[in-house]
Amino acid sequence: MNAASAYTSLEDRFRRLSTLDQVAGVLHWDLAAIMPSGGAETRAAQLAELEALRHGMLVADDMGDLLDAADAADLDGWRRANLKEMRDRWIKASALTEDLVVALSRASSTCEQVWRQARPDADFKSIVPSLSEVLKLAREAGGAKAERLGVDAFDAMMDDHEPGARAIDIDPVFDDLADFLPGFLDQALSAQAAGTDLITPEGPFPTAAQRDLATTLMTALGFDFDHGRLDESLHPFCGGVPDDVRITTRYDEDDFTSALMGVLHETGHAMYERGLPMDWRLQPVGEALGMSIHESQSLLIEMQVCRSPEFLTWAAPIMRAAFDGDGPAWEATNLGRLYRKVERGFIRVEADEVTYPLHVILRYRMEKALIAGDLAVADIPGAWNDAFEALIGVPVPSDREGCLQDIHWYAGALGYFPTYTLGAMTAAQLYQAARIQDPAIVPGIATGDFKPLMAWLRANVHGKGRSVSATELVTAATGKPLDANAFKSHLRARYLDGVTEAA
Amino acid sequence: MNAASAYTSLEDRFRRLSTLDQVAGVLHWDLAAIMPSGGAETRAAQLAELEALRHGMLVADDMGDLLDAADAADLDGWRRANLKEMRDRWIKASALTEDLVVALSRASSTCEQVWRQARPDADFKSIVPSLSEVLKLAREAGGAKAERLGVDAFDAMMDDHEPGARAIDIDPVFDDLADFLPGFLDQALSAQAAGTDLITPEGPFPTAAQRDLATTLMTALGFDFDHGRLDESLHPFCGGVPDDVRITTRYDEDDFTSALMGVLHETGHAMYERGLPMDWRLQPVGEALGMSIHESQSLLIEMQVCRSPEFLTWAAPIMRAAFDGDGPAWEATNLGRLYRKVERGFIRVEADEVTYPLHVILRYRMEKALIAGDLAVADIPGAWNDAFEALIGVPVPSDREGCLQDIHWYAGALGYFPTYTLGAMTAAQLYQAARIQDPAIVPGIATGDFKPLMAWLRANVHGKGRSVSATELVTAATGKPLDANAFKSHLRARYLDGVTEAA
Repeated sequence: MNAASAYTSLEDRFRRLSTLDQVAGVLHWDLAAIMPSGGAETRAAQLAELEALRHGMLVADDMGDLLDAADAADLDGWRRANLKEMRDRWIKASALTEDLVVALSRASSTCEQVWRQARPDADFKSIVPSLSEVLKLAREAGGAKAERLGVDAFDAMMDDHEPGARAIDIDPVFDDLADFLPGFLDQALSAQAAGTDLITPEGPFPTAAQRDLATTLMTALGFDFDHGRLDESLHPFCGGVPDDVRITTRYDEDDFTSALMGVLHETGHAMYERGLPMDWRLQPVGEALGMSIHESQSLLIEMQVCRSPEFLTWAAPIMRAAFDGDGPAWEATNLGRLYRKVERGFIRVEADEVTYPLHVILRYRMEKALIAGDLAVADIPGAWNDAFEALIGVPVPSDREGCLQDIHWYAGALGYFPTYTLGAMTAAQLYQAARIQDPAIVPGIATGDFKPLMAWLRANVHGKGRSVSATELVTAATGKPLDANAFKSHLRARYLDGVTEAA
Repeated sequence: MNAASAYTSLEDRFRRLSTLDQVAGVLHWDLAAIMPSGGAETRAAQLAELEALRHGMLVADDMGDLLDAADAADLDGWRRANLKEMRDRWIKASALTEDLVVALSRASSTCEQVWRQARPDADFKSIVPSLSEVLKLAREAGGAKAERLGVDAFDAMMDDHEPGARAIDIDPVFDDLADFLPGFLDQALSAQAAGTDLITPEGPFPTAAQRDLATTLMTALGFDFDHGRLDESLHPFCGGVPDDVRITTRYDEDDFTSALMGVLHETGHAMYERGLPMDWRLQPVGEALGMSIHESQSLLIEMQVCRSPEFLTWAAPIMRAAFDGDGPAWEATNLGRLYRKVERGFIRVEADEVTYPLHVILRYRMEKALIAGDLAVADIPGAWNDAFEALIGVPVPSDREGCLQDIHWYAGALGYFPTYTLGAMTAAQLYQAARIQDPAIVPGIATGDFKPLMAWLRANVHGKGRSVSATELVTAATGKPLDANAFKSHLRARYLDGVTEAA
């Protein structure tokens, strides 16, 4: 087979593989958003079968030869990048046996389902056996991949979520933030206490009104309901496929703020998925880059844009009208204090952006210890509670607000957490550059026109797919590789300097 | 390979195949119930890919040898029946090329999506190209299967939905019903006109109250919401998988009757799926028998049971309470007149059981003509309207109430319609036998206790899976093969003799 037809044949195969990934994506969405509990066992079997088929196609006997043959083809940049992605996937997949792939898929489905009950019950003991099984298999898979990639097991696990991520690069950044943030948190809390008192808008906030408001703001940001949905689930997420992107939230009728910002966060993810290059649908190079870029898109929308004075100036009257609100609680300045409130809370997904990295660093250090064998599953709650009090300064009331709050480990996602904070740093650096490069972005936001912002993101982030690495993308868009400076500047400007004057 | 291990190996393969069928079932449910329109193209690709994989697994090179080898094994009745089902599927699948399977899957998805807009718009013209494509491919596939089965193309299509169904057997029964029913309809309408006037309960009937009532009655019948859902869709259906059975309905706030009986109908389907033999999950022999038995289960619940005086005596106060009703409109006798009302209506899914077979016979004759090449796609509306007036006696107002009302042809399901009337006949014959065999069934229904009925159905129908043929099942349960006598007796008893006295 000649080089060009080898490449074409690979595109065909990976189109089929991506289609299977999409099918699994729809099933995962269904499982998390609407599946009745009694469907869990058959759903686990369905997902495991898809994994087995996917794995079988990926490690087909002639795949290595095809990849080698295609290497000699005359390929443009996108195709060359596509071929590189194909090879990466083949290397990782061929490190694993089909039995291990299926066992891990089943164990994760089972454990995730146990978690759905263990979390509300704050019953960590009930999940120890299934989490132990997940960890055992994840470690086995991570070890096998690590050998092929020439890294250690935890790096291999991170690589699945964030290509190129290595603990040796992340540790110093996180250590620096773990030094910087507790002191900064004290300062921010003092500044907040010295500022004008927050007036909490009074509820109740009916779910239907919250959903309508969310829909209005999503639409303004550019979310297309012909290509997506908004639903409810215990753990908010963005799922589905690029042409049918589905986000979820959870409503609290006593407090509209968390569901609303959650929706705007997931809308950032959704806009990224929708904006991926149309010409490369169903090819590896057309998919989202690592999770740090994905998270940068949700955090750029939620944290950088939607909690800014400009956005709230525009959105305050819309929010007030949605709940028939009245009085000073609904003024943009007060909503700014509400949406930029800093506190020592327990729940990561509800955390402000000052404490958020501390939540992440806690999890990152613990999962590294779990994989290294330095922490036993049964000791997770104690280790969590000790680390939490040390980093964030308050005692954890129960495992529901502690180590059971997040789905990740229980669904088999180890090494995922650091991408949240890499994403926060990336969001700050991208948004800083965007505002400089297009001065129409901020005035647009202040009038509810998000087109300039979205155009910049489409051109510099969404439309790139995986044609470049995260480092290349950030460098091209901002003029330098990722560091924590923009993030720290943003925190100082918003939580120290800006606390008294902004909307 | 020895015979026993050949059989075991086949069970493994068919377990994987059934799992893929389940995955497709979930995707189909999603498509029909909740998918945004923009997801149609990728969903079609997903379903086509699953079809291709399924087909590839089914026609694997060694499948014929495995089936032959397993034939020599010492198998009990269930395993023997399982092996027969496997062979049938292999014969049908190997008649088709993967290209044709994929093309038909894609064309059906596309056409179904066009139908979703064409129907409300009453725009038949818009669907002519895609329906023509579906018919062309369906005819090609039917012809190829027909050759392998030694029947003609339309019989081969029916065989997919109802194993063993042949036009030569159905034609005389349908001709007889087409002779009998128009005259009977006149008599029933006269008897109705001579009886007490119906008082129509006054709405509006809020959707939420209708859903609550539906949920209450579903639960009483035995539907388990840990293993299923109730949602909304344009065309009500029962989908999902046996351990996660999902039914849909459509609500009309001016008239609660249609959604409610629709739900009870789909609950009959759902109870069948849930009651399939647990020991044979994911094996061909553990699946539902042909669609006539499936439809017999929905019609037995809806028509035989839930429109009976006994059921309505029990349910009337529950219905009244659901809508805060009051007065004589909500008495069981009046609700009986409401739920046994006969009229010359246009919509099959809303038709009474007297006219229903006429709707079916119309479609059956037309689809036979379409496949035989005696009717062109463009001529469907005219042919439909002429036949409708001849059989049911009123002119069709528009294609929305005419040839565009049903999804079947547009989704590629040809030869499906006759199973509805075979199902109605089967329902009457089964329920007649059940009441004789267990005298506790009717008194149970009158007090809201459906356990005796469900126990009889589990033992005689649900739990049989595909271990016997439809004819064997009906003969074993009722003492004789299917005929139209019980159905005709039921109609006479209910619509002529019973019209003046019953609840």
